[in-house]
Amino acid sequence: MIIVMKPNAPETAVKSVQEAVESKGLETHLSQGKQVTIIGIVGDKNKICNENLQLMPYVDKLVPITESYKLTNKKFHPEPTRVKVGNHVIGPDTLTVMAGPCAVETEDQLMLIAKEVKKAGAQFVRGGAYKPRTSPYSFQGLEEEGLKYMAEAKKEYGLNTICEVINEAAIEASAKYVDMLQIGARNMQNFHLLKEAGKSGMPVLLKRGLAATIDEWLNAAEYIISEGNPNVVLCERGIRTYETATRNTLDLSAVCVVKEKSHLPIIVDPSHATGVYSYVSPLAKASVACGADGLMIEVHNDPEHALSDGPQSLRFSTFNTLMQEMADYIRLAGRTL
Amino acid sequence: MIIVMKPNAPETAVKSVQEAVESKGLETHLSQGKQVTIIGIVGDKNKICNENLQLMPYVDKLVPITESYKLTNKKFHPEPTRVKVGNHVIGPDTLTVMAGPCAVETEDQLMLIAKEVKKAGAQFVRGGAYKPRTSPYSFQGLEEEGLKYMAEAKKEYGLNTICEVINEAAIEASAKYVDMLQIGARNMQNFHLLKEAGKSGMPVLLKRGLAATIDEWLNAAEYIISEGNPNVVLCERGIRTYETATRNTLDLSAVCVVKEKSHLPIIVDPSHATGVYSYVSPLAKASVACGADGLMIEVHNDPEHALSDGPQSLRFSTFNTLMQEMADYIRLAGRTL
Amino acid sequence: MIIVMKPNAPETAVKSVQEAVESKGLETHLSQGKQVTIIGIVGDKNKICNENLQLMPYVDKLVPITESYKLTNKKFHPEPTRVKVGNHVIGPDTLTVMAGPCAVETEDQLMLIAKEVKKAGAQFVRGGAYKPRTSPYSFQGLEEEGLKYMAEAKKEYGLNTICEVINEAAIEASAKYVDMLQIGARNMQNFHLLKEAGKSGMPVLLKRGLAATIDEWLNAAEYIISEGNPNVVLCERGIRTYETATRNTLDLSAVCVVKEKSHLPIIVDPSHATGVYSYVSPLAKASVACGADGLMIEVHNDPEHALSDGPQSLRFSTFNTLMQEMADYIRLAGRTL
Amino acid sequence: MIIVMKPNAPETAVKSVQEAVESKGLETHLSQGKQVTIIGIVGDKNKICNENLQLMPYVDKLVPITESYKLTNKKFHPEPTRVKVGNHVIGPDTLTVMAGPCAVETEDQLMLIAKEVKKAGAQFVRGGAYKPRTSPYSFQGLEEEGLKYMAEAKKEYGLNTICEVINEAAIEASAKYVDMLQIGARNMQNFHLLKEAGKSGMPVLLKRGLAATIDEWLNAAEYIISEGNPNVVLCERGIRTYETATRNTLDLSAVCVVKEKSHLPIIVDPSHATGVYSYVSPLAKASVACGADGLMIEVHNDPEHALSDGPQSLRFSTFNTLMQEMADYIRLAGRTL
Repeated sequence: MIIVMKPNAPETAVKSVQEAVESKGLETHLSQGKQVTIIGIVGDKNKICNENLQLMPYVDKLVPITESYKLTNKKFHPEPTRVKVGNHVIGPDTLTVMAGPCAVETEDQLMLIAKEVKKAGAQFVRGGAYKPRTSPYSFQGLEEEGLKYMAEAKKEYGLNTICEVINEAAIEASAKYVDMLQIGARNMQNFHLLKEAGKSGMPVLLKRGLAATIDEWLNAAEYIISEGNPNVVLCERGIRTYETATRNTLDLSAVCVVKEKSHLPIIVDPSHATGVYSYVSPLAKASVACGADGLMIEVHNDPEHALSDGPQSLRFSTFNTLMQEMADYIRLAGRTL
Repeated sequence: MIIVMKPNAPETAVKSVQEAVESKGLETHLSQGKQVTIIGIVGDKNKICNENLQLMPYVDKLVPITESYKLTNKKFHPEPTRVKVGNHVIGPDTLTVMAGPCAVETEDQLMLIAKEVKKAGAQFVRGGAYKPRTSPYSFQGLEEEGLKYMAEAKKEYGLNTICEVINEAAIEASAKYVDMLQIGARNMQNFHLLKEAGKSGMPVLLKRGLAATIDEWLNAAEYIISEGNPNVVLCERGIRTYETATRNTLDLSAVCVVKEKSHLPIIVDPSHATGVYSYVSPLAKASVACGADGLMIEVHNDPEHALSDGPQSLRFSTFNTLMQEMADYIRLAGRTL
Repeated sequence: MIIVMKPNAPETAVKSVQEAVESKGLETHLSQGKQVTIIGIVGDKNKICNENLQLMPYVDKLVPITESYKLTNKKFHPEPTRVKVGNHVIGPDTLTVMAGPCAVETEDQLMLIAKEVKKAGAQFVRGGAYKPRTSPYSFQGLEEEGLKYMAEAKKEYGLNTICEVINEAAIEASAKYVDMLQIGARNMQNFHLLKEAGKSGMPVLLKRGLAATIDEWLNAAEYIISEGNPNVVLCERGIRTYETATRNTLDLSAVCVVKEKSHLPIIVDPSHATGVYSYVSPLAKASVACGADGLMIEVHNDPEHALSDGPQSLRFSTFNTLMQEMADYIRLAGRTL
Repeated sequence: MIIVMKPNAPETAVKSVQEAVESKGLETHLSQGKQVTIIGIVGDKNKICNENLQLMPYVDKLVPITESYKLTNKKFHPEPTRVKVGNHVIGPDTLTVMAGPCAVETEDQLMLIAKEVKKAGAQFVRGGAYKPRTSPYSFQGLEEEGLKYMAEAKKEYGLNTICEVINEAAIEASAKYVDMLQIGARNMQNFHLLKEAGKSGMPVLLKRGLAATIDEWLNAAEYIISEGNPNVVLCERGIRTYETATRNTLDLSAVCVVKEKSHLPIIVDPSHATGVYSYVSPLAKASVACGADGLMIEVHNDPEHALSDGPQSLRFSTFNTLMQEMADYIRLAGRTL
């Protein structure tokens, strides 16, 4: 961290800041410019509550130099992480496809969809049993009943399973029935939930918050890993911007940034990002082309009657075509399904 | 709701859409323009999953006409709500001031701050016992211990108390010790938490999410009220924008919009919105001037050594001056402390 | 357009609004719901200043139904536009690559870069002669001198040329030397400039404004076309969001949206969008994968000493590798260079 | 400026960077931490194109320390600037009110409005003669004819006058008829226009761009001042965010930030910021309460028939009431009309 002093800072003010830092067992380095003096801090910055230093007389601003996340930081773990889930490994060699309905609606619906996405090549079936909905008057999910259907789909079709969790009870229940937990965008900074997901030891898919910076996202992953659970996969699903032509703005640059800053795998969810089924296929291909480790795609047997997110769901035929067309892109990316 | 058909939609396509809507027991009204045909839907739109209609052939787009929130909607409850908390009523006649530290740090600290904010005129002491922090390596709060100090401050100084809750356990504990629950910005769409807060029956301060629209915020309030708990107060605390000169962008227009759309009281938190103590006083006055029902302000006995948010905390003397200067603004607003 | 009345609107208020609309020669259609009455307006809405209707008593809000742009609207021109520039056609069959330095610096520099981008397969050399810079103390461009070098590069290497224009004088000068005008992001709503570019009759590349919605962008294109110049190509170059890990946020969904709403070609500029050279290649491939008609890429012979945008410029070797790797993606997109 | 090296940077890489900087006549200061080495640069950073340094081997990132604007920077000009326009001084002692129609429509209209805003206490009449409109099919302004009416209003009522300019021709024409030029939000980074406005020597009101950071805004002001024209006043008019309940999001914190960073006066335009007339009065009071030097407010004799921005225009009676109610706020701010 660096402390920038105001242009007119007297020597005594500089000295006071240095003493404040050094009294905590850290070192300081002084750099006297023509306009400003800057003070570099060397050592473990967790020893001081840094931000308070900006309250000291003649301090202009503080400039952080190192990232606050450690366990998710590529600088300290250069090797890409591989996350094993069920019979599949998510990571740099594979292209992971998680497909299924937004919400588990009935046993028949889930089994039918599972069968079709398996046939098309997906390795995971997804399906929400606990639905966070903007309005309290919308369908809220089947809860544990839905999880049981997921377990059945796994057994029947050999698919790995993933389900969103929204509280401790949902984590406990999911641990019994599915292979991977999903933390949704709205809960990305529900730190209590992150810790519980960490404690569960289960693989976790962490979606990016609607307004989360990549730094905050990696810090959220840090919460999970710091509980001793390194099995974290990130999922870009669009951020909120001023543009309303799509539900959110898919930030594919985030794939490149995450690959540079972190060792964690990252997949992309073009369904939630756009909210429009006809944009899903081109953006799925784009995701593979720019280096994503996988995709989460909503597929439904009957989008017109889906209880949630019908407009963004692919029909079986469209999903199947996408999987066939993607084969070339996956090969170009040096990956296999 | 209105369904806009594509320019080239044949009559049969229009009829199909009408039938789909009418089969659910709703009425349709046709309006044939030169370029487009639009279909108005009359009736309880919860009977159909509206959004799926946009998947029908030749449908161009759906346009919602009525708000999805009812209980928080001023159209159906024109009278401004008054929320009684302890010995105080939050609403159109009063100007509520909640002041205190970001985090409860020690018993002595809280008692000292409570004494001073009381003396300056605040009706509430605030203080976090459960802290949601971006990094897992930051101070996370005293939890129940902190709540006990709050109860003590209430007893000693006759202040009403408010504390942020982050999960069910925190709600249960808070119910024993404090007067009002706070749902923080990061949990605004933690729907499970909203329902639990609703069930508690306690007054709830609902902060606006970092990237929440006013509509989503009112829908979040609807979650609480729909559990039978009408005691909800909103709190504008800045939204995330591209501007980084302040931590967030305080959206004071939101005060005007909420006053027009809802009957719920709304207060403003300029401390979290800006992150800079020197901006707090001018924006506090601005909040009163534009019609806010109250303020939440961070005050600390020793900002340089605060464990959280030191840079945005007011010292006792600054807070005291602000309260004195605000007296005129409160009077101009036709309110009393 | 639709007018939504307030729930308590008396019949006389509804009638007044209808009369106001009909007095301008438009028709109205009434749709009486349980909660609200809505009035549909049929006819040429340019006859009335619509927005003022919301000032009439008991009007709740106005809801636009049709887009304000006509000439750029796919609904009225379903066939994709092909824009001929020099010896090349930009459109659905080709993948256009415009490459070159951010700023033309010297004759030697431009000729060297032109030679290399030609060899690698680009059909255009780009290079700024008039530079809009955030700070007045940055390099502002060679102006007409730079344009002459562009003409020379065209002559020597058979490349088509494109240059940004910032005022009428620049348009006049550019018309003498280059094949295509570029309107930069900061000038997307410089309506005077748009009209002048329209009058010039030259092909125009219209970059999306930093904070422009797709609708505003298409309306800006409408300004050019409405002067009788249909030769417009759009360029997505990142929008401003809260995320700062990249200079802007590349909005690849915009490619899908534009393809659906408009008949105009759209290319992508990953260099300006990200500001980081290492993100350019993966996002270039992603652009092709999601349907873009072309790319604009910054290439420099010596990025370390570039006078502008060095950090986002590709070296010759990187650009060459990208062009080779893209060949497969171009083929998969059913296009040719 | 500071250069942060990567954790594994060898000594030779550090030395190379130092040499690159020192070869330009600047000094470097080394600060060796446990994790990273940072290099401080001392001297006139305009000597090097700083950003390119990040391309050198093992450089992690560059961190700017000093602002790029000088002439608008309070650090070097601590005294607040007073801008004399006609018979009025804009600055810390006065509260400037500029009121009038969005667009000058007819001579009668302007004279009528001028008379009323004068009577209510405004010192300026505003009115657009050159209108930048999103759609080419909207009213585009009376141009020079409109300016003549402004001059007449000035003569008749002793009001100072301000008009938006959109190109050189408009600046030339305006110089003949009005007292102050306005650069609109869409042209804030039309650097050519900024320079021309600077050369004109006339007082300039510079509106903040829709997506401009405060830093970019102050850099835009720097363009004007660096042409030898120090008479610049800033105008906050709302920024683009994801919230659509208001046309833009009024950023009142910007008033506080500008007061801290710059010596230039800043006024607020709540009309354009919100787009809704009923929000204008509360936010006008809030602007005065948080320290703004003035207000720009749209007033129209007949908003229902205004050719532009009717819904956000105040009627005479509302404007008059606002001016009376504001008197107390102006007094509390220690200012006079």
